[in-house]
Amino acid sequence: MKPATLKTLSLTAVVALMTAEAAWAADPLPSWKGTAPKKAVVAFVEKVTKEGAPDFVPAPERVAVFDNDGTLWAEQPMYFQFQFALGRIKALAPQHPEWKDNEPFASLLKGDLKTVLAGGEPAIFEIVMATHAGMTTEEFENTVTDWIATAKHPKTGRLYTEMVYQPMLELLAYLRANRFKTFIVSGGGIEFMRPWTERVYGIPPEQVVGSSGKLKFEMRDGKPVLVKLPEVDLIDDKEGKPVGIQSHIGRRPVMAFGNSDGDLQMLQWTTAGSGPRFALIVHHDDAEREWAYDRQSHIGMLDKAWDEANARGWTVVSMKDDWKTIFLK
Amino acid sequence: MKPATLKTLSLTAVVALMTAEAAWAADPLPSWKGTAPKKAVVAFVEKVTKEGAPDFVPAPERVAVFDNDGTLWAEQPMYFQFQFALGRIKALAPQHPEWKDNEPFASLLKGDLKTVLAGGEPAIFEIVMATHAGMTTEEFENTVTDWIATAKHPKTGRLYTEMVYQPMLELLAYLRANRFKTFIVSGGGIEFMRPWTERVYGIPPEQVVGSSGKLKFEMRDGKPVLVKLPEVDLIDDKEGKPVGIQSHIGRRPVMAFGNSDGDLQMLQWTTAGSGPRFALIVHHDDAEREWAYDRQSHIGMLDKAWDEANARGWTVVSMKDDWKTIFLK
Repeated sequence: MKPATLKTLSLTAVVALMTAEAAWAADPLPSWKGTAPKKAVVAFVEKVTKEGAPDFVPAPERVAVFDNDGTLWAEQPMYFQFQFALGRIKALAPQHPEWKDNEPFASLLKGDLKTVLAGGEPAIFEIVMATHAGMTTEEFENTVTDWIATAKHPKTGRLYTEMVYQPMLELLAYLRANRFKTFIVSGGGIEFMRPWTERVYGIPPEQVVGSSGKLKFEMRDGKPVLVKLPEVDLIDDKEGKPVGIQSHIGRRPVMAFGNSDGDLQMLQWTTAGSGPRFALIVHHDDAEREWAYDRQSHIGMLDKAWDEANARGWTVVSMKDDWKTIFLK
Repeated sequence: MKPATLKTLSLTAVVALMTAEAAWAADPLPSWKGTAPKKAVVAFVEKVTKEGAPDFVPAPERVAVFDNDGTLWAEQPMYFQFQFALGRIKALAPQHPEWKDNEPFASLLKGDLKTVLAGGEPAIFEIVMATHAGMTTEEFENTVTDWIATAKHPKTGRLYTEMVYQPMLELLAYLRANRFKTFIVSGGGIEFMRPWTERVYGIPPEQVVGSSGKLKFEMRDGKPVLVKLPEVDLIDDKEGKPVGIQSHIGRRPVMAFGNSDGDLQMLQWTTAGSGPRFALIVHHDDAEREWAYDRQSHIGMLDKAWDEANARGWTVVSMKDDWKTIFLK
């Protein structure tokens, strides 16, 4: 090792920390109004990072987990990954003439999303598997990378990666500056998220937990590849979220952030730990700037988790009343 | 955030880096002799960390994966986790009278390890499942923590955590000082390793990949728990290692370290990536200070991976000739 490298590193670290210091001294969360949720977040972070205080949490244990769809980026009128899968189905349809007579593919190709969704999780699963299985992980990554760089949201016309929430980006940065390790724990596909989460959220692939299919190692033309099989490995939603957390992280989070009943068990698991724990729910109640939906929605239903949040004093963010800005600036 | 916290942090960081600098300026790997393997490791690390150089690898992509049994700690005369399971079987035997008539338990209880091992992986799997399944993850963690704090190796009489290799501890620290993220990728149980890898290797639970059983989230007395099920999730050995790497890390390692045929696919997967890659095999050839075994061994067989290492120019460490010290000092 060259001493010069270390000297450069340490200087860079100092400059980075001082710059951060100046910005955050003013306001670590400028897109959050000064209402109760912001106060609760800041009070919690100050309490667990104060060395010697009764609620101090050592840095290696500072794990914060975030749902993705509806928590870090939008999810209406349809999970964005579903839009991706739909594009794949259309592209692959010529090679699958049988799809015109089989559900959920037939309805999907006719643009009848309501019938597709009536098929529930099994229908969605079949679509995902049909469009992912058989590809190598590298091929799939390339397909996602191409799509995410160009596909636009049907309503806003923006790139999907521009439909991330500015207040949550600030929150991720604030937690990391306080030596939290930030993880995504999403029902979405792990390999659908990893190609872009580092660039968009600053969350590296090894800190992304999501639903996954089984993989098989094999040699193709003398080169090792991993092939995606049409078998579920983990559905990282509801009861699956604590399982995904244990499998990938191996320690209980200190803070958890979600927006729907799919996050309930993750919030329960997080807050059931001893010592200080924090749970927050993003409530979509801003029809003007985003969407308004909760108890009756098929996508992102917030019903049981909302009741539990109220009963247990978890923090609930009103997007309308607590956020100055919603989307990425 | 309090500015004072950041100021303290940055000073600590500077002091830590300067201390490291002083030590490493002398020799980053004092327990390694100045032979070819040490030169190869240092040359590779210098090459990929030199900004602007053709082989530069950005810090977030610096992933190094380490096998555990036989690579970071010893594995003879029996994988240490097997010693743990054996203790559990003896403790649980009174509740399982049927074990005296059923293999592999009958032989195990008689101390006839040879017959047990003749049953191969299925027998080992049955023992592991019998001793782990039905427990919550917290109960299991407590059992491991108790065992690892007190159990002694049958030959050396040392704690198992004292039977880790000093040269590999230095290597882990050296790589981390060069901003590598170090991961364990082991055939051993993920939940068997996580309770102690941070303390012993400086590797946190979220950077431990291993074999795993399925987990189930449930409520017990109103408290959420994760219960270990008697079903395999992943056998993180041989073809399973690249699968475990993809599932947990999601990017291809730059450096990989192993000692047996169980590591072959991990080394193949690592070195098949584009750009600079490094593979190293620890060869157990020191019967005096440790154990000598390779092609004929049931535990830690090194045969195909050795041939491939020679054919492809991977680095092979002779414990006898390349290491000054073997065990933790």
